[in-house]
Amino acid sequence: MNEATLTLEGWYCLHDFRSIDWTLWKAADHEERAGAIEDLEEFMKEFQVTAQDGAGSTAVYSIVGQKADFVFMYLRETLEDLNKLETAFNKTDFAKFTVKEYSYVSVVELSNYLGKEGEDPMQNPQIIARLKPELPKSAHICFYPMNKKRELADNWYMLSMDDRKAMMRSHGLIGRSYAGKVKQIISGSVGFDDWEWGVTLFSDDALQFKKLIYEMRFDEVSARYGEFGAFYVGNLLDWEKAVEMLKV
Amino acid sequence: MNEATLTLEGWYCLHDFRSIDWTLWKAADHEERAGAIEDLEEFMKEFQVTAQDGAGSTAVYSIVGQKADFVFMYLRETLEDLNKLETAFNKTDFAKFTVKEYSYVSVVELSNYLGKEGEDPMQNPQIIARLKPELPKSAHICFYPMNKKRELADNWYMLSMDDRKAMMRSHGLIGRSYAGKVKQIISGSVGFDDWEWGVTLFSDDALQFKKLIYEMRFDEVSARYGEFGAFYVGNLLDWEKAVEMLKV
Amino acid sequence: MNEATLTLEGWYCLHDFRSIDWTLWKAADHEERAGAIEDLEEFMKEFQVTAQDGAGSTAVYSIVGQKADFVFMYLRETLEDLNKLETAFNKTDFAKFTVKEYSYVSVVELSNYLGKEGEDPMQNPQIIARLKPELPKSAHICFYPMNKKRELADNWYMLSMDDRKAMMRSHGLIGRSYAGKVKQIISGSVGFDDWEWGVTLFSDDALQFKKLIYEMRFDEVSARYGEFGAFYVGNLLDWEKAVEMLKV
Amino acid sequence: MNEATLTLEGWYCLHDFRSIDWTLWKAADHEERAGAIEDLEEFMKEFQVTAQDGAGSTAVYSIVGQKADFVFMYLRETLEDLNKLETAFNKTDFAKFTVKEYSYVSVVELSNYLGKEGEDPMQNPQIIARLKPELPKSAHICFYPMNKKRELADNWYMLSMDDRKAMMRSHGLIGRSYAGKVKQIISGSVGFDDWEWGVTLFSDDALQFKKLIYEMRFDEVSARYGEFGAFYVGNLLDWEKAVEMLKV
Amino acid sequence: MNEATLTLEGWYCLHDFRSIDWTLWKAADHEERAGAIEDLEEFMKEFQVTAQDGAGSTAVYSIVGQKADFVFMYLRETLEDLNKLETAFNKTDFAKFTVKEYSYVSVVELSNYLGKEGEDPMQNPQIIARLKPELPKSAHICFYPMNKKRELADNWYMLSMDDRKAMMRSHGLIGRSYAGKVKQIISGSVGFDDWEWGVTLFSDDALQFKKLIYEMRFDEVSARYGEFGAFYVGNLLDWEKAVEMLKV
Repeated sequence: MNEATLTLEGWYCLHDFRSIDWTLWKAADHEERAGAIEDLEEFMKEFQVTAQDGAGSTAVYSIVGQKADFVFMYLRETLEDLNKLETAFNKTDFAKFTVKEYSYVSVVELSNYLGKEGEDPMQNPQIIARLKPELPKSAHICFYPMNKKRELADNWYMLSMDDRKAMMRSHGLIGRSYAGKVKQIISGSVGFDDWEWGVTLFSDDALQFKKLIYEMRFDEVSARYGEFGAFYVGNLLDWEKAVEMLKV
Repeated sequence: MNEATLTLEGWYCLHDFRSIDWTLWKAADHEERAGAIEDLEEFMKEFQVTAQDGAGSTAVYSIVGQKADFVFMYLRETLEDLNKLETAFNKTDFAKFTVKEYSYVSVVELSNYLGKEGEDPMQNPQIIARLKPELPKSAHICFYPMNKKRELADNWYMLSMDDRKAMMRSHGLIGRSYAGKVKQIISGSVGFDDWEWGVTLFSDDALQFKKLIYEMRFDEVSARYGEFGAFYVGNLLDWEKAVEMLKV
Repeated sequence: MNEATLTLEGWYCLHDFRSIDWTLWKAADHEERAGAIEDLEEFMKEFQVTAQDGAGSTAVYSIVGQKADFVFMYLRETLEDLNKLETAFNKTDFAKFTVKEYSYVSVVELSNYLGKEGEDPMQNPQIIARLKPELPKSAHICFYPMNKKRELADNWYMLSMDDRKAMMRSHGLIGRSYAGKVKQIISGSVGFDDWEWGVTLFSDDALQFKKLIYEMRFDEVSARYGEFGAFYVGNLLDWEKAVEMLKV
Repeated sequence: MNEATLTLEGWYCLHDFRSIDWTLWKAADHEERAGAIEDLEEFMKEFQVTAQDGAGSTAVYSIVGQKADFVFMYLRETLEDLNKLETAFNKTDFAKFTVKEYSYVSVVELSNYLGKEGEDPMQNPQIIARLKPELPKSAHICFYPMNKKRELADNWYMLSMDDRKAMMRSHGLIGRSYAGKVKQIISGSVGFDDWEWGVTLFSDDALQFKKLIYEMRFDEVSARYGEFGAFYVGNLLDWEKAVEMLKV
Repeated sequence: MNEATLTLEGWYCLHDFRSIDWTLWKAADHEERAGAIEDLEEFMKEFQVTAQDGAGSTAVYSIVGQKADFVFMYLRETLEDLNKLETAFNKTDFAKFTVKEYSYVSVVELSNYLGKEGEDPMQNPQIIARLKPELPKSAHICFYPMNKKRELADNWYMLSMDDRKAMMRSHGLIGRSYAGKVKQIISGSVGFDDWEWGVTLFSDDALQFKKLIYEMRFDEVSARYGEFGAFYVGNLLDWEKAVEMLKV
């Protein structure tokens, strides 16, 4: 039986990192800025409507450092939904005060799912809750894309399924030891973006990101087979904080 | 007999990824935008004429994420035809509202073709249909460039032809198991662009891209010898949707 | 006992590298420039207030070469504090004369700390002084990010803890032989930025940076396991020098 | 006897890839555009004068895809001549409608030349014709830079001269089998640009570029020791076509 | 005895590569351009004063290809001196017609110096002449940064000092065989910039750069252990030529 068939997919996911063009923002007059903020608020109202409809979930965080000023993390039913959100944002009066920084396209996944005979996992509420999760309002977010290495003797994809399963089990144990401290959302991006997975972590204590990832790095799965992209870390950006941030 | 002689080539191919400068687009007045859209429509009419003449095929998709807003995938008889299309687009009144993001030059190819004595494959309608394919109107597109690795012990080009054929056969079987779900167009780009091949997939279910590519990744050809560039995924952009997208 | 538990963390750290847009700066009139400098001075006053409150420390250096014109190195209690500083700077009238060049997010760390039974290291003033250090006013700064390698036979994370400890001890001895000449601040960035650590060195003699790092490069920890990012070197930029630099 | 002494050098070479800023070009009024084209024509007249004087040769091609709109490939006696051409182009009224994309500096070379006792190869007309070649007016151009690898077991520069010669001989045989179909110009760039060689191919059938390079890739010299940069492919751009391209 | 102690350092070095914004330059009126040139001349006068004072040396070359239009290579006593030169240039009326392209920070070094008991090498005029050299007015310059490799079996820093010395000796012999043809200045950049060394070559015959570097490439030090960055090549730019270059 093929491993790929054991992976379940849920909501599509877009991480949309943007920065503010502060010179333009400050140069705008009060009315323009007020209109832009109003437009942004209107755009963001959709997030709540979608959440109430059970049709998706959205997280908004500010990003620390120059990589970006903020990120919208969208979970939605289809790639078309994600495209529409991007375009809708681009059409707001706020968008012209922003610049694109980085984005990531993926789909929430549950891998190594062991299905039971005659059961449709997509009817199992626990499974659905993991595939179509409500994003938490934790104080901090951490995002990074990653691959499993294929480099000579360190080639994940040439290992036997048993070896891979044993290693992933030990890996999962570390993750579970952070239960209650760090919430992890794994999304697959093979065929969608430049890395194989996106990892999004949420925590009220940013140090837990460092501790979790560092501890995992000594685990063979990460140590020998993990390949990591850029890391983004940020702070919850609720509407009040957003308005504060934009006050000039 | 040399392997290279077994490869057949058909239409030249240009993937032309562009983004819209939304600030400029919104700042334009109604008349300017209407003129630009009209110009774009005029430009795109050529796609149908070319298709009717059997002189090429064109796909238009929006792209998810910040990498691009849309892609034109052109199949045409010559490199000159591709150049003319680029220039013609650049001269439209719409082009000034766009920015270049990425492009890829290649030629549709059928490799490992086993010719029959005395037969000219270019007279075989089935072969021609694969070398000069009509691009489908599937809901989704996926594009990525790739190489065969040449890294120490993992060197595709140092393998015997028998080894390569055996591996490609198993690889092809995975591809065929997705028949009806995913349409693949392989184009060669040795000498034309920075990778050795471009792969374009079409499907009505974007998850099939992920499943197909992930399943293949465990196949030795990909696991040990595949090297992948950036991945682009998108949604069919027919004229109605394009007009909707551009409405501000 | 897990190694990760032996690491202590103190202040969060942001290195914020910027350049001046000299054309814009020169094109501004006297009044605009005076206002911008006043705004910058106001912004930088916070550094002293924070230092007096024991809530952080700040270093300001000019950078040699085109990579940046200056760097703010902020140590603060939380990631939110760092975010607020960025935003506050962006809102000054001076910011519009600058461009972002590079930034680095990390947290001051003390690794391999050997705790004593029943002792809370965060109550130990010597430990606190290292985790929440007052940045020196040395003549020069040197910053670079780094990783421990995970490349086939040279994989730091696959070594036993004993091997790692022995190597780090010898490494530390080189560092200590530069005591009084070079002050080192090590900050961890796993989960926060693209490399695993940031290293910031301070010295009154820039040659000591070269001698220290070069000597270490022959040490097995660096020779086999060190992977280095970009290096930034600079000169102390006190307010008087800053005003001088900005005089046109 | 040292291998390096067996290499002969001829004309210096600059590949100058540029794109047109179509928005600016279209925004210019008729008179401005006419003046710019006149200036360009004046600049390009020098190409013929130089060719007639035997002091150099020039090729002008449009480039397919977004990498560039066109390339000037200059062969001239000295690096100063190349510098003067760049500057002269930059001073034309046409240049402001273009942007720099990529360039490559090299010198035409004939390697492994086996000189005869008492003969000065630079007096041999056949040698001179290869070192100071007249660039053909083929329908297509292909350019790419390349290195010989120095990676652990695959290190070209650690091989014996006999091994290298044997491999280069087999490599050369493939090249010669394309005689009449593809013209190759090899230029060395050690000390001049970021790769060790530049390869420029000319052919009336662009597929021959693909066939030649792909066939060579299975040859040990390329398979184990070749490292390739970006590939540029294009179409002959004579003055008539250039004027057509610029008509808006 | 530690190897690092055998390295002597002299003047700090900044290579400052810039391009001219020709559109801006041509758009300026005669008076503006004359003022900018006057300002540049004033700025460059400092070079002679510094040279006469024995406080530094400066080279000015135009660069071939799109990487830059010219380079200032500054040798000065301190990093502060280099910073002041950058800032002084940025404040000239000429600077606004230029864009930054690349820079490199290093310090002239003499490695493997075998000191004699009781002798202070910094009192030895021959040593001083090499550490604080007067830059020649050769027709051509070549600059590139480099590392010694640390890649698995090819790790320079894991070799014994004897092995390294033996290899460097053979390397040095090649260099010396070009005495009178090529002048080499080696500057160390560990802790100062992204590579470990910068190499600047001067010659009246640019082909000698190619011959020297290519010959060295077969030497084990380069073949197995050399890692090279970008190469810049250029022509002497005296004031007369600079004025000629800027004439529009």
